Amino acid sequence: MTLTGELIIGNQDVSRETTFHARAAATGEVLPVAFSCATSDDVRKACSLADTAFDSYRATSLGMRAAFLEAAAEEFGAVGDVLCERAHLESGLPMARLIGEAGRTVGQLKMFARLLRDGRCVGSLVDPALPDRSPSPRPDLRQTGIGVGPVAVFGASNFPLAFSIAGGDTASALAAGCPVVARAHPAHPGTGELAGRAIQRAVVRCGLPEGVFSLLGGPDLTVGRELVRNSLIMAVGFTGSRQGGLALMREAASRPVPIPVYAEMSSINPVLLLPAALGARAEALGAAFVMSMSMGAGQFCTSPGLILAIESEGFQRFRSAAVEALAGVAPQTMLTAGIHDAYLAGVRSVAGRPGVTLLGRGPDAGPHECHSALFAADAQIFLEDPTLSHEIFGSCSLIVSCADEAALFAVLRSLEGQLTATLHLDEPDTGLARRLMPVLERKAGRILANGWPTGVEVCDAMVHGGPFPATSDPRTTSVGAKAIERFLRPVCYQDLPAALLPGVLAEF
Amino acid sequence: MTLTGELIIGNQDVSRETTFHARAAATGEVLPVAFSCATSDDVRKACSLADTAFDSYRATSLGMRAAFLEAAAEEFGAVGDVLCERAHLESGLPMARLIGEAGRTVGQLKMFARLLRDGRCVGSLVDPALPDRSPSPRPDLRQTGIGVGPVAVFGASNFPLAFSIAGGDTASALAAGCPVVARAHPAHPGTGELAGRAIQRAVVRCGLPEGVFSLLGGPDLTVGRELVRNSLIMAVGFTGSRQGGLALMREAASRPVPIPVYAEMSSINPVLLLPAALGARAEALGAAFVMSMSMGAGQFCTSPGLILAIESEGFQRFRSAAVEALAGVAPQTMLTAGIHDAYLAGVRSVAGRPGVTLLGRGPDAGPHECHSALFAADAQIFLEDPTLSHEIFGSCSLIVSCADEAALFAVLRSLEGQLTATLHLDEPDTGLARRLMPVLERKAGRILANGWPTGVEVCDAMVHGGPFPATSDPRTTSVGAKAIERFLRPVCYQDLPAALLPGVLAEF
Repeated sequence: MTLTGELIIGNQDVSRETTFHARAAATGEVLPVAFSCATSDDVRKACSLADTAFDSYRATSLGMRAAFLEAAAEEFGAVGDVLCERAHLESGLPMARLIGEAGRTVGQLKMFARLLRDGRCVGSLVDPALPDRSPSPRPDLRQTGIGVGPVAVFGASNFPLAFSIAGGDTASALAAGCPVVARAHPAHPGTGELAGRAIQRAVVRCGLPEGVFSLLGGPDLTVGRELVRNSLIMAVGFTGSRQGGLALMREAASRPVPIPVYAEMSSINPVLLLPAALGARAEALGAAFVMSMSMGAGQFCTSPGLILAIESEGFQRFRSAAVEALAGVAPQTMLTAGIHDAYLAGVRSVAGRPGVTLLGRGPDAGPHECHSALFAADAQIFLEDPTLSHEIFGSCSLIVSCADEAALFAVLRSLEGQLTATLHLDEPDTGLARRLMPVLERKAGRILANGWPTGVEVCDAMVHGGPFPATSDPRTTSVGAKAIERFLRPVCYQDLPAALLPGVLAEF
Repeated sequence: MTLTGELIIGNQDVSRETTFHARAAATGEVLPVAFSCATSDDVRKACSLADTAFDSYRATSLGMRAAFLEAAAEEFGAVGDVLCERAHLESGLPMARLIGEAGRTVGQLKMFARLLRDGRCVGSLVDPALPDRSPSPRPDLRQTGIGVGPVAVFGASNFPLAFSIAGGDTASALAAGCPVVARAHPAHPGTGELAGRAIQRAVVRCGLPEGVFSLLGGPDLTVGRELVRNSLIMAVGFTGSRQGGLALMREAASRPVPIPVYAEMSSINPVLLLPAALGARAEALGAAFVMSMSMGAGQFCTSPGLILAIESEGFQRFRSAAVEALAGVAPQTMLTAGIHDAYLAGVRSVAGRPGVTLLGRGPDAGPHECHSALFAADAQIFLEDPTLSHEIFGSCSLIVSCADEAALFAVLRSLEGQLTATLHLDEPDTGLARRLMPVLERKAGRILANGWPTGVEVCDAMVHGGPFPATSDPRTTSVGAKAIERFLRPVCYQDLPAALLPGVLAEF
């Protein structure tokens, strides 16, 4: 499987004169293969093909759609070593992590295939006619979910496989019956192309209409903006920065026909260490925290960026253990030079805030690596300085010490919406934890006990979402079974002859 | 039960010096009772009480919440004749219709109570722990839906009971565990107060926290705008004009924390008469159409404002029958002077468009009554003149004649999103209908065969929603079981001790 640098527009491989190159994350060197920059015409063509394909694609049976997702999983798996190798070059993520992420991507595609075979996921409901009801009969009413229309998917920088071209947004949109026009992340166009080719092959293999999938790319925001503005695009999936997500939300809201942007943007994932748990295992918690915080150079949406506890001797031991663990963290390559620069700027900014102490840093890092940083402040300082609650993408965390429960509650209440909130607790902490729960439920999409937020299980009950700005729409999740609901809308069929009903409703 | 004109702020009845009066729809006369205008402080107070009540209200068991909705239904029913009498004065709607609407309102409250007792509506999911899974164990993951927070509900002008203070938005928000701050429609503040008092009594009777419900009013947009801007409000339910809905959407999108506005706004509800059906029963269809179009002076969101067919002798008979039926339509009082003025302006505007013919009008109408109007044009004229596809709220409809199937498809494809689309068909029309379905599915939230769109059944499978601008969010419905989903967000609990789980999840 050789990279060509071409765009995927339906069944066509298209090359353009204007090209761009990826850079090796670890060295900054230009990588081989010139990638075509999509033109405005390419965007229009891909959207138009998607719109044309929509009606026949969404009319496929759930079983056919499941078979297509399984074929996509198989083709993705068949790309072979070249996929993770290219992803490793472009993202700097370790091979072991990428091999795991590839497995997760295959697993996600298969999960949605399973859900489709199940049939439940489209939410069919039937109210049979009541012809003898008085004073007026009830008609036959049947509801099912149909795809919203062509979906634009923006690949994430930090999950070049599982949250990118063949990732969760694409899998759930395709499962919902929506064609996808994907925009490859400019930092890993080669990875994107390999994943995109796998889906393109699955489309052909399953005899689906051209336009069910296209892949466009470019070095900057132009293609993405044009995609969101295109009137044929009916929803957007995005994982990335707050700034990027907000820009897309504004674009989408100002269209003549506004569309939803499902943006997963920004979270500092507070972790609360309750007194008994701290007293019992401060050292173990400190070491585990640093492992979670520094995992993948801290480049996870769910990285723990804020630790909270009531000041105590145990908390002091926790901090010491964390600083000690930090010294042993192997520096890891960051995803892009831009992310690295933003990380350094964020760390510098926090270091310069009044009342903030640098607790420690990781071992010296190379020019493209993450130099972990751990800061401390007390609750008062945190409450007075809103910049301290901003996400710093990378291995950096702030430990906030609270004088008492009131300060702990005040800090929690001051937080913006989060993907996760974590409690470390022992049995004697239950009373305090019960009082904290209502605050945490308002703030986060997932609440964990005695674990760490990095690591997002792919299953029915998972919520990878949360109140703004964790996501643009807290009623949704981008991981797990409910992710499909973002791309479905209910349609009700009243007294329709069986010949006109969608397959899933005609069977009742 | 006597009207006081006071605001309802939690358990307090509050009167203000600045007041306004309702007018009798039928005469324009000022009606008794001075209604207090809510101040900015009142808005803040009601939102603050709602926010304070939120945590304990949402923590109630589903059974307790069901009992509350049943109590609200009972109190609403116990208001007695004064409710429909006041609604009749304020809205001009006939008593028989209002008595039916009151029954529907009680039915909706009870439907959500039933759904809560059922337990399914909050969408709980459980993935049990797999401690022995390799390579890593799976934690215990449980998901349920919790309320999004305090909800602002805007009463509709055209359903002073079923889509207003105690109507579907309020019932579904309360069912979801969200406190409601309702804004009474300025055209029927007395009806609003009577309905609001019923809910206030149910709150007290069930021992629920003050702030679960408040009712504010005023003569203009000020209170509504302040409500949507208030940072404690987390979602908005609205039924009304396109202009009003769009204004609220803009307000909500420009908040520091954007919130969803569920606005049900604008629809012309195309009705397609297919050849065989037209040939077989043109006269009956013409008469039934006029009955649907003129029902409630055409003041229904689902009023059929556009009739489409391929030109034929049957279509000619249909038009003649419709014109004949129109002459027998008893004029009916319109809801407000403003709506009446807008109706007259709309009719005048259509009458003046090139290529549009006035087919007929209803009998002469009094100064506050709706003077029905029926227009005709051909497809080419319709396609060239976008103003012809604008909703005219009232008993007015446009019959569009298509030269052939291609013209019929072109007109359909040109339409904006709709609440409903209707097919009249006989067996020989099935082939054409099958080709039309994909177009209709993209355009409408509900597709009917051989019926009329006015009349929205309250049941599980109903969808009263549709693509923009029918609603602001085509994934939702404001009628039926799924209406509750607008006000729920999923939260995932990972490895939480049973003592910290919400009741519905602890039971598994």
